[in-house]
Amino acid sequence: MTGIAQKLASNQKQVAISEFFEKNKHFLGFDSLARSLITAVKEAVDNALDACEEARILPTIRVVIEKIDTKKDIIKLVVEDNGPGIPQKSIEKVFGQLLFGSRFHAIRQSRGQQGIGITGVVMYCQLTTGRTTHVRSKISGEPTAAVVDIGLDTRKNKATKSNQGREIWYNEDGSAKEHGTEVTAQMKAKYQKGRQSVWQYLRMTSIVNPHAEITFTDPDGEVHHWPRVTERLPTKVEGIKPHPHGIELGQLQRMTSESTDSRLTVFLRMNFSGVSARASKELCVAAEIDEKTKPKSMNPDQIRALLEAFQGERHVNGKPVKLLNPPTNCLSPIEEMLIKKGLSKTIDSRFISTLTRAPAVTQGNPYQVEVGLIFGGNMAADKPVEVLRFANRVPLMYQQGGCLLTKAIESVDWRQYGLDQPGAKGVPKGPAAILVHLASTNVQFTSEAKEALADNGEVIEEARKAMLEMGRGLRKHLEKKKKMAKTKEKFELINDILPAIAEKSAHILGRPVPDLAGSITKIMSAVISETSTTWNKETKQTDVMITLFNYTSRVRAYTILATWPEKAGAEMINNETGGRKEATGVWAWKLPSLEPGERTVITYNLSGLERGDWTETDVFFRGSQDVIGASKMDEKFLEEIRRQERALSDTGNADSTPEEPAEPMGEPTVAPPSGQTTLFGGDV
Amino acid sequence: MTGIAQKLASNQKQVAISEFFEKNKHFLGFDSLARSLITAVKEAVDNALDACEEARILPTIRVVIEKIDTKKDIIKLVVEDNGPGIPQKSIEKVFGQLLFGSRFHAIRQSRGQQGIGITGVVMYCQLTTGRTTHVRSKISGEPTAAVVDIGLDTRKNKATKSNQGREIWYNEDGSAKEHGTEVTAQMKAKYQKGRQSVWQYLRMTSIVNPHAEITFTDPDGEVHHWPRVTERLPTKVEGIKPHPHGIELGQLQRMTSESTDSRLTVFLRMNFSGVSARASKELCVAAEIDEKTKPKSMNPDQIRALLEAFQGERHVNGKPVKLLNPPTNCLSPIEEMLIKKGLSKTIDSRFISTLTRAPAVTQGNPYQVEVGLIFGGNMAADKPVEVLRFANRVPLMYQQGGCLLTKAIESVDWRQYGLDQPGAKGVPKGPAAILVHLASTNVQFTSEAKEALADNGEVIEEARKAMLEMGRGLRKHLEKKKKMAKTKEKFELINDILPAIAEKSAHILGRPVPDLAGSITKIMSAVISETSTTWNKETKQTDVMITLFNYTSRVRAYTILATWPEKAGAEMINNETGGRKEATGVWAWKLPSLEPGERTVITYNLSGLERGDWTETDVFFRGSQDVIGASKMDEKFLEEIRRQERALSDTGNADSTPEEPAEPMGEPTVAPPSGQTTLFGGDV
Repeated sequence: MTGIAQKLASNQKQVAISEFFEKNKHFLGFDSLARSLITAVKEAVDNALDACEEARILPTIRVVIEKIDTKKDIIKLVVEDNGPGIPQKSIEKVFGQLLFGSRFHAIRQSRGQQGIGITGVVMYCQLTTGRTTHVRSKISGEPTAAVVDIGLDTRKNKATKSNQGREIWYNEDGSAKEHGTEVTAQMKAKYQKGRQSVWQYLRMTSIVNPHAEITFTDPDGEVHHWPRVTERLPTKVEGIKPHPHGIELGQLQRMTSESTDSRLTVFLRMNFSGVSARASKELCVAAEIDEKTKPKSMNPDQIRALLEAFQGERHVNGKPVKLLNPPTNCLSPIEEMLIKKGLSKTIDSRFISTLTRAPAVTQGNPYQVEVGLIFGGNMAADKPVEVLRFANRVPLMYQQGGCLLTKAIESVDWRQYGLDQPGAKGVPKGPAAILVHLASTNVQFTSEAKEALADNGEVIEEARKAMLEMGRGLRKHLEKKKKMAKTKEKFELINDILPAIAEKSAHILGRPVPDLAGSITKIMSAVISETSTTWNKETKQTDVMITLFNYTSRVRAYTILATWPEKAGAEMINNETGGRKEATGVWAWKLPSLEPGERTVITYNLSGLERGDWTETDVFFRGSQDVIGASKMDEKFLEEIRRQERALSDTGNADSTPEEPAEPMGEPTVAPPSGQTTLFGGDV
Repeated sequence: MTGIAQKLASNQKQVAISEFFEKNKHFLGFDSLARSLITAVKEAVDNALDACEEARILPTIRVVIEKIDTKKDIIKLVVEDNGPGIPQKSIEKVFGQLLFGSRFHAIRQSRGQQGIGITGVVMYCQLTTGRTTHVRSKISGEPTAAVVDIGLDTRKNKATKSNQGREIWYNEDGSAKEHGTEVTAQMKAKYQKGRQSVWQYLRMTSIVNPHAEITFTDPDGEVHHWPRVTERLPTKVEGIKPHPHGIELGQLQRMTSESTDSRLTVFLRMNFSGVSARASKELCVAAEIDEKTKPKSMNPDQIRALLEAFQGERHVNGKPVKLLNPPTNCLSPIEEMLIKKGLSKTIDSRFISTLTRAPAVTQGNPYQVEVGLIFGGNMAADKPVEVLRFANRVPLMYQQGGCLLTKAIESVDWRQYGLDQPGAKGVPKGPAAILVHLASTNVQFTSEAKEALADNGEVIEEARKAMLEMGRGLRKHLEKKKKMAKTKEKFELINDILPAIAEKSAHILGRPVPDLAGSITKIMSAVISETSTTWNKETKQTDVMITLFNYTSRVRAYTILATWPEKAGAEMINNETGGRKEATGVWAWKLPSLEPGERTVITYNLSGLERGDWTETDVFFRGSQDVIGASKMDEKFLEEIRRQERALSDTGNADSTPEEPAEPMGEPTVAPPSGQTTLFGGDV
């Protein structure tokens, strides 16, 4: 027995992070040969999109896959972008050193975060083919591009460099390339088609990155092209400071011990978001610490007390200290209309509904959920719906079952909304696809491969709410379509049959045919509205026409309300009926007297949109009698919108000053009562 | 634009592995408060079991959980073991430095491997409570135990130490503790009960570690005790060298460049398993490299050629170079009987079947699959079966859906074997539990939290095969039971009714009652066997009795064969019928003449077993007429067993010399045709 403890201990040694990931390369997504290729494409494309976004460049990405040796499964991958490029001296660290990067400590939405991804690709290539990865990168203002072959010394987590030099980089058309990066890698991998493929990854990427232009040449030489569908770059995201609600004790200890601030209140205001000057003083009072205390000199009990004040467990005047929410300009959701555009571009369907929830905060981290639902069309009715999962605009293609986003979908009873779902459990069946996107400053994946989101009760509930709201929209749409179809049927019946009977009877009796207009109105006894939203090719505007028929015998009075894409930057013109803004995205017209039998028309045009941006207008009414073809306005809902608008203008944003004028992303979602905008490509 | 590339690059910096895991603590299993506690218990208990096994100590483990502050969810965890202890100077590295450990480069089965686990616990405690972790450890031969409080400097990945000292460690009974380690940690966590709980984790641990004694005091002060059910330590595992089939090019490059061997043949023999002296020469010929070449001086093309020779892509005399399989003494399966014992101890059921497959090799890594099935008893019939997943004797409690072991279960059509499984997909339903254990030198998890196994086609197929074999056993068992019941019914009917009729008829006719023995035999026209296997409390032996009735009118001749636990170390005594060994675990008796109406009994006792070790004997026959209650021996199967036995004695084991006499673990599985041993606790 003696000596066994020493013997066991003597074998212990330190392992380098690169050795760790070389052995556990499957943690990084390099497990099967097919998945390894997708992972490599993903890491390179994510980097390209992130770099372009940060440099405010509309991305143009070229992906080429060639089979080098089919028998030995050796594949060559080229990914080229038009991003800002990487300075020569940084290349080796970006590509050849694990856990090196710029985004690890930043609190803002980004695709890459850990500084692992692309170095993992270089490592995998070296391990499986023994080859280095060729990098070419040019930055604006330099005459030539830097070129270098990068490998990885896994024992030391350092890059190895060879064939370093500079060269002029020509585009395919012979012109000189201005800026960008190109990665050429050889790896053991398999190219395959289908649901889990490079093609599918790029297709999904283009749905949530409609501002990107992506070209993919597959091993058969076939070229796949996903064009850019908007020239609008995603909202620029700003890094924010940590919010007190997201701080752990150990983190606070480190922050105070590393602080050079002279007093605690300064430390609180300068290092956290959501802490106003007043709140910083109140936190000191609540924690019973003198506000002049030097943070570095605080003892463990004081730090603990401060954390308790952060968490509202210590009070001032019997109340927890009020902290502002963190600013949400660190997020960049895709936004409803662009999701819709991306979806309709790639999937044929009859009904699309999308929804962007207002930003929320979990554990001090701002996040935002977006969902989309496509229904009908060519999709299979007897299979589980297609689930499209995204995190920070990156498609998630593996581990669907273990992902929070899937669990949110499974938590909804879809049978209420017209989808099949045996036992109200699991992913529903039906001719539909459900999209879920989580934008967050701190996406918690279950592993480095970033394929599934770890559990978080608040986020799952937020995603569930979005899904419920969207589901209600689908049900309403189906009900409305049904009701309209019924009314139309009745109207046509009456309009066809009554005159025929009248004519026949008059003929038999030898009497003149009576005027039936009054009778028909009495029988119909309804006010009907019809709305059309059409794209005008010539004027490049969207023409909207709302028609009301009063098929009753009395004079009617209504206020008619309609949704319009105000927050997408549209302008409403030629609106001769006038009216007024009711809330952001909701316009109202007062129609004080609709005479019996009268037809009233509201017309206007929407400019500043592109084709497909706005294809359906939702119409509501205020008034005592129902209007078929419109919904009664829910006043509580409107009030809620207005409350949110007021709250928004009150929100302090002390920690960051946006460089650009306010964009709509930070606003609460303003939408009709269904909580969404809907687009009909035809009957469902 | 100018300057943006430089600006982006200037923000980049190196992140320490400890900062990485602090931010991504959910990768390590610290996501929800409930799971964090289970993870902490798991890491501490795994370490204790590993250390005890390496030091060949029967583990006694004490786990105590106390609620320190219910409102703030602060919990205190104590885990104490009787392992060899850790030398004072090693404690800080084991507990306070990530990626520090002894098992990372070792190729053998162990619970821990990465050197992350327990340091992750220390990190989580520090982060959530600001507190250090108290460690007490005593090694044999030293008078006192070392004590120290350990924290983690996450910026540097180094331990921080405080309150270091030495003290005498007393057991609860006042005696001095000989050796062991005790960890006391305070963390933000929640104690909960149910399917995912500390209690369930320990219960499952005790199933697959029947040699461990575990005591758990829960926060209510209730003491749960899982006693040791075997005094036999798991087979000692030996580290092996990598096998050429599991080598990647990059790894071979590194091995050659770091080699100090003078010639290639020596390098091949000394650094790989499965390479004989002859194979090392043949590999050189196949790769077209002079065998005198110094490995360090090989060029990339030569290294690539050598790898191709490894993989059988380069030939000698038109054939790939033959390599031996890696030795399998690096594995320590639980073995069928101990699994059975563990299962029957914890789950009430009527039928248990277990199966240990022979070791196999995937990508140069030896592995072994074990399965168990429990059926009937108190389990719910309308719910999915309970899935018990294990890897290297560690229970897997999360991410069931994303795990290879679950996929293997789902790949079987269980409806064939009497379980409900809608659409032949997913986990089957029924009153059953399915256990799967993977023992491997290189368990590939999907993340550091080690809760789900990554995909591997070969392993999934091996597990599937095990499941199919076990399923067939269940079906056979059900069929056999049904057949026996039918025969018994028929026999009872005839034995009851015929005499009654005879008596009645004789009475009516005034004749004497005839002797019916001959008629009954004619009607039955069958040979019936009955087997009983019972534990004899007094002799501490298992008594087996096989009875044969010849209910036919002819003399019959059979060879009767029975399974017995030879490889578990049992001895067969008082076997007066004699017979001979047919194969390992199969005994045969020749019965040349069974007279009509005769009853023949074979009896023997099994010694060297414990109660519950052997509760069912499978009986087979050779002969032209069926025996009800026994199965016809499948000669091909017996031949296969013998072939495996011969192969085993041929297998070269040049790379390792076991320190202990050969244990049965390395042997191919020897089992009856059903491929398993079965235990009946009653009718199913």
